[in-house]
Amino acid sequence: MKVLFTGGISSGKSEEAEKLALSFSEPRVYLATSDIKDNETLKRIDRHRKRRGTLYETKEEPLYPERFFDKNCNVILIECLTHFYNNIFYYIPEKAEREKRFLEFLEEVKKFEGNLIMVTNEVGLGGVPANSLAREFADFSGWANRLIAQISDEVFFVISGLKLKIK
Amino acid sequence: MKVLFTGGISSGKSEEAEKLALSFSEPRVYLATSDIKDNETLKRIDRHRKRRGTLYETKEEPLYPERFFDKNCNVILIECLTHFYNNIFYYIPEKAEREKRFLEFLEEVKKFEGNLIMVTNEVGLGGVPANSLAREFADFSGWANRLIAQISDEVFFVISGLKLKIK
Amino acid sequence: MKVLFTGGISSGKSEEAEKLALSFSEPRVYLATSDIKDNETLKRIDRHRKRRGTLYETKEEPLYPERFFDKNCNVILIECLTHFYNNIFYYIPEKAEREKRFLEFLEEVKKFEGNLIMVTNEVGLGGVPANSLAREFADFSGWANRLIAQISDEVFFVISGLKLKIK
Repeated sequence: MKVLFTGGISSGKSEEAEKLALSFSEPRVYLATSDIKDNETLKRIDRHRKRRGTLYETKEEPLYPERFFDKNCNVILIECLTHFYNNIFYYIPEKAEREKRFLEFLEEVKKFEGNLIMVTNEVGLGGVPANSLAREFADFSGWANRLIAQISDEVFFVISGLKLKIK
Repeated sequence: MKVLFTGGISSGKSEEAEKLALSFSEPRVYLATSDIKDNETLKRIDRHRKRRGTLYETKEEPLYPERFFDKNCNVILIECLTHFYNNIFYYIPEKAEREKRFLEFLEEVKKFEGNLIMVTNEVGLGGVPANSLAREFADFSGWANRLIAQISDEVFFVISGLKLKIK
Repeated sequence: MKVLFTGGISSGKSEEAEKLALSFSEPRVYLATSDIKDNETLKRIDRHRKRRGTLYETKEEPLYPERFFDKNCNVILIECLTHFYNNIFYYIPEKAEREKRFLEFLEEVKKFEGNLIMVTNEVGLGGVPANSLAREFADFSGWANRLIAQISDEVFFVISGLKLKIK
């Protein structure tokens, strides 16, 4: 089963995704994609880490999260796709290469037969960003989210901590 | 009964909240939290004021709105929580103190047995803001909205003037 | 029939609108409102153009789209209202005149008895913009979208390519 949780900043999407992940028995993998190591992000990561305690085995992979798609796990929680998209933007300069990387990942998501819970962000509902990189990112992110949603069995949009089933 | 209306800028959330408030008989309290006094905001306040006319008794309180939780009122409309969060950010410099102020308010919302209609904004669906204060605010706002939504009986997400019941 | 599709950047709203438009038989009009001619926009326009091929007759009109409301067409797809709002902001300096232009357009939408599919953007869910023009635009856009939604028979909010019927 593939489930996608999408929503805004601090909307409660991670909490909902984790709640679902914990309804599966162990072993569970928490697949962290964040690659940013500034203090603010470290604090956020630390908060997430405390919340999950020892309930998951944590794997960290910024650019090739699919290498931890292990069918011996009962459930894999990817937190989050937006960081993965960000890493694609950071490490890969060419548009075509960026799309290629994402499409390869998408293929592996499709093929994977285990339980996959994915968290992503809606980033395009605040108007057109003033700088062109942010515009490009909003486009990429919208495109990628749509492809993930298309192959997901269930999709939830989380607003103010309330989840709305949109697929 | 506690009802929360959330949505974006000029989405029609205030109009929907006021429509509901007017379905209660008088006395009604309009609890305004805005503390900003620039010309642009004054115009906006004036527009809201004209719309509500003499249908409400207006109370203004930027930081302790709960002091107007009067059980002799048939309905209290808080317009809006986002301004209240903003005031918390403006007047209280410490993160822990900010959260404390909000949690005290939340406690009073929980305890209040009258009819409370609250308006708030979704601010985190436009990507990660470029400045750290705005990021902090988006986090705080998302966290606070979730807690309010949790103790509300009904929650509506308003898009293009159409309300979607999400709780 | 009047149908409105709203959503964020690259949310899939155009694709959904086009899918619906193609369910009507020819002649179909694609009514393009974009007036911006920088390279980035030209690329985007080109992408849209390739996708629609010869399935539509294309009309371009930045400020008076209603002049192509032709009842001999089976369906008219307006892509998109947000560009139209943008053009109003660009060409008309006065607030009252801007609103007048929109309300005249709205009147023609109301009167038109053919099939009209409209695409617009939600731009106010990312917090209050830092510059006043963007704030004004968010207000205008929210106000205009609400009026269009009010006279539409069906309204869809598109998230991650999934359409949610909100009216």
